[in-house]
Amino acid sequence: MEAVGLVTEYNPFHNGHAYHVTQAKAVTGADTVVAVMSGNYVQRGVPAVFDKWRRTELALAGGVDIVFELPFAFAVQPAHIFARGAVQLLADAGVSSIVFGAEHAELDFLALAQQARERLAADDHFSADYSQTYATAFNDVLAEVVGFRLTNPNDMLGFAYATAVIELGLADQIRLQPIQRIKAGYHDTTLSDDHIASATALRELINQEAPAAEFADYVSQPAAELLAQGTQTADWSETWYDALRYKVLTTPIDELETIYQLTDGLAYRLKETIERDITADYETFMTTFKSKRYTQARLQRTLLYTVLNITDAEMQTAMQQPYLRMLGATPVGRRYLKQQRESFTLPLIHKVEKDDLTGILMLDYRAGRLYQQFSRTRQDKASPLDTGRIPVFIERG
Amino acid sequence: MEAVGLVTEYNPFHNGHAYHVTQAKAVTGADTVVAVMSGNYVQRGVPAVFDKWRRTELALAGGVDIVFELPFAFAVQPAHIFARGAVQLLADAGVSSIVFGAEHAELDFLALAQQARERLAADDHFSADYSQTYATAFNDVLAEVVGFRLTNPNDMLGFAYATAVIELGLADQIRLQPIQRIKAGYHDTTLSDDHIASATALRELINQEAPAAEFADYVSQPAAELLAQGTQTADWSETWYDALRYKVLTTPIDELETIYQLTDGLAYRLKETIERDITADYETFMTTFKSKRYTQARLQRTLLYTVLNITDAEMQTAMQQPYLRMLGATPVGRRYLKQQRESFTLPLIHKVEKDDLTGILMLDYRAGRLYQQFSRTRQDKASPLDTGRIPVFIERG
Repeated sequence: MEAVGLVTEYNPFHNGHAYHVTQAKAVTGADTVVAVMSGNYVQRGVPAVFDKWRRTELALAGGVDIVFELPFAFAVQPAHIFARGAVQLLADAGVSSIVFGAEHAELDFLALAQQARERLAADDHFSADYSQTYATAFNDVLAEVVGFRLTNPNDMLGFAYATAVIELGLADQIRLQPIQRIKAGYHDTTLSDDHIASATALRELINQEAPAAEFADYVSQPAAELLAQGTQTADWSETWYDALRYKVLTTPIDELETIYQLTDGLAYRLKETIERDITADYETFMTTFKSKRYTQARLQRTLLYTVLNITDAEMQTAMQQPYLRMLGATPVGRRYLKQQRESFTLPLIHKVEKDDLTGILMLDYRAGRLYQQFSRTRQDKASPLDTGRIPVFIERG
Repeated sequence: MEAVGLVTEYNPFHNGHAYHVTQAKAVTGADTVVAVMSGNYVQRGVPAVFDKWRRTELALAGGVDIVFELPFAFAVQPAHIFARGAVQLLADAGVSSIVFGAEHAELDFLALAQQARERLAADDHFSADYSQTYATAFNDVLAEVVGFRLTNPNDMLGFAYATAVIELGLADQIRLQPIQRIKAGYHDTTLSDDHIASATALRELINQEAPAAEFADYVSQPAAELLAQGTQTADWSETWYDALRYKVLTTPIDELETIYQLTDGLAYRLKETIERDITADYETFMTTFKSKRYTQARLQRTLLYTVLNITDAEMQTAMQQPYLRMLGATPVGRRYLKQQRESFTLPLIHKVEKDDLTGILMLDYRAGRLYQQFSRTRQDKASPLDTGRIPVFIERG
């Protein structure tokens, strides 16, 4: 069997993703589609609109054969760490290619990444460690070497995949295959008329609690019914921000400074901003807190680390312990796993053991507990996201 | 001038307290009444029904001349630490006597405490450090020496004052004067018919949001109007418990174990109880969490330390740094301060400086921020309880 890998968030899964799945098989000839998917939180540092189980169900119904969870330690990170984690998991799962959408599919991402790396290695100005500015530095170099910058989000991710493939020594093992993205860009908030909508536009509809019929053109029927239920967790401006404020008010500055990425004065800035007016709402807070030095996503991720009380030490440990958490599979996916699992080097997790909760799964477990706690319905509050769960197995014709 | 000291919570101030003030002056002949009062939280580990400023106003209107805040590190503690902190502050403030209500005012508390101490010192079984069981050990010894136990709460507090007086070497400086408590016991929930109600009964009325007229028989007119506004902060079963749950879900067990008094497996028990059912309400949680080993007050205090993220190290430091925080004074009180303040050895705080917030006042500041944050009205949420405040000065005829 031959597998093609996809790096996904599916927040939520829509027709554009279904097209991606179909194309991935078409361009590679693979018989199995393996997706690495962000868990309960997405890369820009907010809870996903639905938990990882519901998003897995839709992905399997939409054509994916196996869904592995991208652990929190990689999923909620800047692009280079996100990409490296995802590529490492897909490689270990034995995929022979990774297919990704790009705004400029004609680019040779591997060659670009290779050129940028060589230029970087020759230049003392650029640090090759995993600092926050790594991706930016790469892009600066790229501009210098090939004369242009990547400005579109999917092109930039493609570049990050290519860099990860090179750094992990996978260039001979995994083929990177960009495909042209069709229609709706990531940030589009309008719905198009040819059955492809951006996830952003769909999330707006979900937040408006639109009826299922309004989703029907852009997602599958089961997805439309789920989406019509509204988002699963409270909005950041409500419960999550309350928790952040409580956390900051009760935590001394030197303890706040142990939080991952709450560095370079950010802990102090956060505490000062919150303390200045504890009646301020989230938007007012953000207006004061944001700065030109950091992107909105970087700040939002940092706030999420703070709410989840993730220290630098915890994150460093978690980043050293990737694993393959299987969230679901089709019959084809199960056959693939049966054939391939012997060759996996990372731990394969079907069912969570008690020791995992304080060990390898600690961050994901904690993040899942908060997702659950801040869910909007009593039923979702009562449903643990890690313990007592088995993968989603669907039968598909 | 001569001062008499009172150890108080005034939660809230009522006619029984006014009687206590009058009697204190009558039996001692003192011209100035100095009260040490718990701040925003009371001894059994819950927020006071009104913040320390409002309670100070009522105390001054009710006959007290100076109110000093009993710092959190002493106020929210078992009786022996509570008593020791209060006696130390009153002694430093120069009072020559302490008058307290007791169920058995005929007892010679100093003599009882002295006998118990001597017996304790001679016995290896009893540890004389400040462990949780100190008060119990004293009472056990008392039973052995004098043939009876103190079972009434105010008798027990009196015994704790006497022990503190002896331990602090104040027996020659401060006279302990018990007075017979009249009517309503601490735990009475019924209102009596002679203008004395227990604070417990009044709090029930406050929670029911009774009109001012219903309070008028038991408190002063300004107090009745305040009490009719309802409690100032959210009930524990609401916001406070939400914060506790959030804190426990996001804190690893080894970090929880650094919280003051969350020892001997209590951290584990707390985490397990919360995690077992995160939809449980506060009462359901408490039913599972409570045990015969600990009193309800001890557990409630421990939950409060957890919500406030007070580590053992922070508490030990704070207990070594008592101070005289002046919350308010009458003209008589101000005259007394002018005469006596030169002899105070503890820091006298009128107005909080920025450095105090991360230093000597750290715990009280943090506790005040949470009290404010969990206040019920927007106005109270917006009013800092430590910064930008000056003592309450009232003119009294």
